[in-house]
Amino acid sequence: MRTLVPFGPSNPLTRLAAVLSPAERRQFADAMLADVLRTVRAAGGDPVVLATEPVDADAPVVVDDRDLSTAVEAAIGGETAVVMADLALATPDALERLYEARGDVVVAPGRGGGTNALVVRHDGFELDYHGASYRAHRENAARVGATVEEVDSLRLGTDIDEPGDLVDLLLLGDGRAVDWLRDAGFRVREADGRAVAERE
Amino acid sequence: MRTLVPFGPSNPLTRLAAVLSPAERRQFADAMLADVLRTVRAAGGDPVVLATEPVDADAPVVVDDRDLSTAVEAAIGGETAVVMADLALATPDALERLYEARGDVVVAPGRGGGTNALVVRHDGFELDYHGASYRAHRENAARVGATVEEVDSLRLGTDIDEPGDLVDLLLLGDGRAVDWLRDAGFRVREADGRAVAERE
Repeated sequence: MRTLVPFGPSNPLTRLAAVLSPAERRQFADAMLADVLRTVRAAGGDPVVLATEPVDADAPVVVDDRDLSTAVEAAIGGETAVVMADLALATPDALERLYEARGDVVVAPGRGGGTNALVVRHDGFELDYHGASYRAHRENAARVGATVEEVDSLRLGTDIDEPGDLVDLLLLGDGRAVDWLRDAGFRVREADGRAVAERE
Repeated sequence: MRTLVPFGPSNPLTRLAAVLSPAERRQFADAMLADVLRTVRAAGGDPVVLATEPVDADAPVVVDDRDLSTAVEAAIGGETAVVMADLALATPDALERLYEARGDVVVAPGRGGGTNALVVRHDGFELDYHGASYRAHRENAARVGATVEEVDSLRLGTDIDEPGDLVDLLLLGDGRAVDWLRDAGFRVREADGRAVAERE
């Protein structure tokens, strides 16, 4: 399935600014993008990077600097998936479940109300990426009579964009992004009955 | 499948102490337990509450005030599932995937390295509930030659025990716990491009 992977290479992952420098955030974002592209291919998808500016990537790149919803909507044609570039925990199995789920619209909800991964098979469905986009997308689907199927996946539901997410990547990740993180000195430590990420 | 639901009614959910009073935490914990017991039954499971002290519940109650790993290990007999009492997002579908997954040990990892749900089908497998129990359980399984299967579920992977989890319950929940939360005045608000829970 054609799979758009939106990516903003300029000042990415701002919520990680307290723990990674701007140059590190760009390297880490590139590593996560590479993992996502490889995982999309392993699941049988055809990845297309939808970038806000030209970028080197192991996939075709469409450049569109308009807001995310507008750019994604312009790039959708026929059955299309949209998978965020910071889903570094995604596995081929999880993406296969996304591709195989029936429904005019298939949504993998993320923590905090985001829409981390999506399949659109309905022409009239309107995208609305913002804070609680999961709820907006369900409402937009209902408005045009599109059926919605939810994919229940921790690996699609966990985007890596806040300091508290790094421990999940260290514990569950397997790819370039977790290698980058370990090389940068991040380790798992136990604190107050929970695992946390700590930089050496 | 026989399904243990560990529950500590005395001063539960301490990580929610900043947003809920002790009496409210107990009510909220009771509501989540009721949701989990109902969901276990809807998935075809036989719930047994494993409590640190006597408690009213809509299921048989085994009282054992020893530490969690010891108490669970004592209560396991044959094929047994262990599902945490604060998995208020769990659905019958998610638990059916847990029950149906093959493997001597089936693990649903949670955010922060926890083992939110588990199936044990191997006599020699040792439990070790603590901070990063997911990793410990994988290691313990490997040590006794038990095969491990992972269940990838946001609904099993998200325990509701910190203020940041409440928004996920408000957005994705459906049961007594989310009703209790709404009655207590909690609502979804958008802040900095994310949904957060706010008390009116």
